[in-house]
Amino acid sequence: MNEPRGGTGGATIVEADALRAFTADVLCSYDVVPDHARLTADVLVRADLYGIDSHGVSRLPLYAHKLGNGLVNPDPRPEILAEAPAACLVDGDNGLGPVASLLAMDWCIDRARDTAVACATVRRSNHYGIAGYWALRAVPHGMIGVSMTNATVLVAPTFGRVPRFGTNPIAVAAPTRNGRPFLIDMATSAVSAGKLQLALAEGTSIPEGWAIDAQGDPTTDPLAGFQGALLPLGSTYERSSYKGYGLAVAVDVLCAVLSGASYGPHCLSLTSEFDSIADVGHFFMAMRVDAFRPLADFTVVMDEMVDGLHTTPGAPGAPPVRVPGDPEFDEEARRSRDGIPLDAGTVASLRRLADERGCTAQADRLLGA
Amino acid sequence: MNEPRGGTGGATIVEADALRAFTADVLCSYDVVPDHARLTADVLVRADLYGIDSHGVSRLPLYAHKLGNGLVNPDPRPEILAEAPAACLVDGDNGLGPVASLLAMDWCIDRARDTAVACATVRRSNHYGIAGYWALRAVPHGMIGVSMTNATVLVAPTFGRVPRFGTNPIAVAAPTRNGRPFLIDMATSAVSAGKLQLALAEGTSIPEGWAIDAQGDPTTDPLAGFQGALLPLGSTYERSSYKGYGLAVAVDVLCAVLSGASYGPHCLSLTSEFDSIADVGHFFMAMRVDAFRPLADFTVVMDEMVDGLHTTPGAPGAPPVRVPGDPEFDEEARRSRDGIPLDAGTVASLRRLADERGCTAQADRLLGA
Repeated sequence: MNEPRGGTGGATIVEADALRAFTADVLCSYDVVPDHARLTADVLVRADLYGIDSHGVSRLPLYAHKLGNGLVNPDPRPEILAEAPAACLVDGDNGLGPVASLLAMDWCIDRARDTAVACATVRRSNHYGIAGYWALRAVPHGMIGVSMTNATVLVAPTFGRVPRFGTNPIAVAAPTRNGRPFLIDMATSAVSAGKLQLALAEGTSIPEGWAIDAQGDPTTDPLAGFQGALLPLGSTYERSSYKGYGLAVAVDVLCAVLSGASYGPHCLSLTSEFDSIADVGHFFMAMRVDAFRPLADFTVVMDEMVDGLHTTPGAPGAPPVRVPGDPEFDEEARRSRDGIPLDAGTVASLRRLADERGCTAQADRLLGA
Repeated sequence: MNEPRGGTGGATIVEADALRAFTADVLCSYDVVPDHARLTADVLVRADLYGIDSHGVSRLPLYAHKLGNGLVNPDPRPEILAEAPAACLVDGDNGLGPVASLLAMDWCIDRARDTAVACATVRRSNHYGIAGYWALRAVPHGMIGVSMTNATVLVAPTFGRVPRFGTNPIAVAAPTRNGRPFLIDMATSAVSAGKLQLALAEGTSIPEGWAIDAQGDPTTDPLAGFQGALLPLGSTYERSSYKGYGLAVAVDVLCAVLSGASYGPHCLSLTSEFDSIADVGHFFMAMRVDAFRPLADFTVVMDEMVDGLHTTPGAPGAPPVRVPGDPEFDEEARRSRDGIPLDAGTVASLRRLADERGCTAQADRLLGA
């Protein structure tokens, strides 16, 4: 929308279309090809629509930092370096992550029409946004989609005190009949770095089990957590954090060791502190459901399963049981209708960036003069 | 070995070969085909070698219960029902899980020689042992292996108070150069049911975060946990148990909804309480590394990564950092050398079973007269 609404709780409310246009304009100011800029804007704003604010336009300044310092190629030509009937290796030419991701995921979808299943790994890429965006691309084709990426080193292995791998997310999306797609999109760490950033911004403490400090001791201080490391999903050995650790390394194997990208401690994806080329790796897969059974049979059972989960008797005092994807799609419906709230810090950083890039008029239109 | 060694701590020590032979003999007494009996014995004893006692020959009486009650077909003809270049659907003909699993995983390995990647889903199967056994089959072929299965309903979704899906494990195995394979093999619940059984047998309490009681409240009583439900990996909402929950459902989608097997609450895999046919579902995948990059390049980086993890500076007072697969392969080396300890309860149940099946002489040879 062109008229900013009054913020609630200090937030500025913007419409998704307007936010996409603004984001694309800023990216184009770095000579990003318009198609690539629009795609990247769509990925970022999708995160904002889903309520995953940490992965939305609040990250645009980091993308801009990389572009402005010549660390990301604004006009990449991603290329398929190796190809088999059901698998390929993509070189991202150090472009914005969504560019190579689109090529790779759509290659899988296209190939799976014949082979039923296809995978792609990507090297020399950059931050690709939310993992779920790519997995979901398979769903309208009657396919199950899978997407993974490695990420900036932030997470310590069980019993370790320093980070050795990233929050390495996994997304899986599947079609349903009447409902919304089934979607898991999850960091393999106990929480993403965004939750620590939020606590830091709000001046609150964090629960035990999210992070350790630089000495390797459990901490409830988000700043100490950033100086130390995040913990894998499971949090402690007793609660099987070696499982989250193992999943994170498996993601690194598929995204980076298999593709030749930077793995584990060498992956410096998206932080302004590291002025180097990231060489992020991704992994994608598409599986055509009707190679296994008729799509309608599959989606009927998906709906039954989802209904069964929604009607699970609840634990005392707990909110209703949700199904993977519910939080994202509920928030998307709400924000598509009511607009996307941008907090004051994000608004200020977007204004600053816009002023630097000669996009002041666009920022005024989006955020108010 | 034929001469039982003296038990330590009440345990009877047996050799792997002798334990395999005994297990196969008992299975053959139910008219299981000798090849299938040997395969199933190898799967069970591999778990014992890895130190995963809950998934080893201690489960033989449950397998026997199913066979003895006509709930598992002793002479199955698993069949490929649908086939595409890189995917197939297998019907397990209600045989022992390893029979259909061998067919499906080896189909993937064989097919991936051409297509680089191949998947199989299996329906109408039964308990397939440890997930890692199947993933590891791909490794000697220069491939990454993936294996998943659904399992008896035991785990509650986040905010729920009753079980809605199983411990649905995921295994991923990858080749290395000098070392042992990389292997994750993990239930997607905080812990497997075996850890509760162990606490129950030993009369100890369990940590919070493993289970809830029948009212849906957190419990430290293993019996109350069995009467309630296990919790997903992450344990609590605050520590992101919806991630373990989401992974478990994703495993069910690939193993059961995609194959047409029994999903979630309908899966009653391996418990003597349920006198019904299980209709378990599995999912397998093989990925040929050299379709993406030369195997030697891949394995060199795998070794670097493993070395980097092993040398991670440790948290205060913590044991050394291990790498996924270390616990299993360390224990396998130890038990291959020193023998497999069977606890008194397992020994008693194996003797009882052997007596029923006319295998008393075999039991005496294995366990001492």
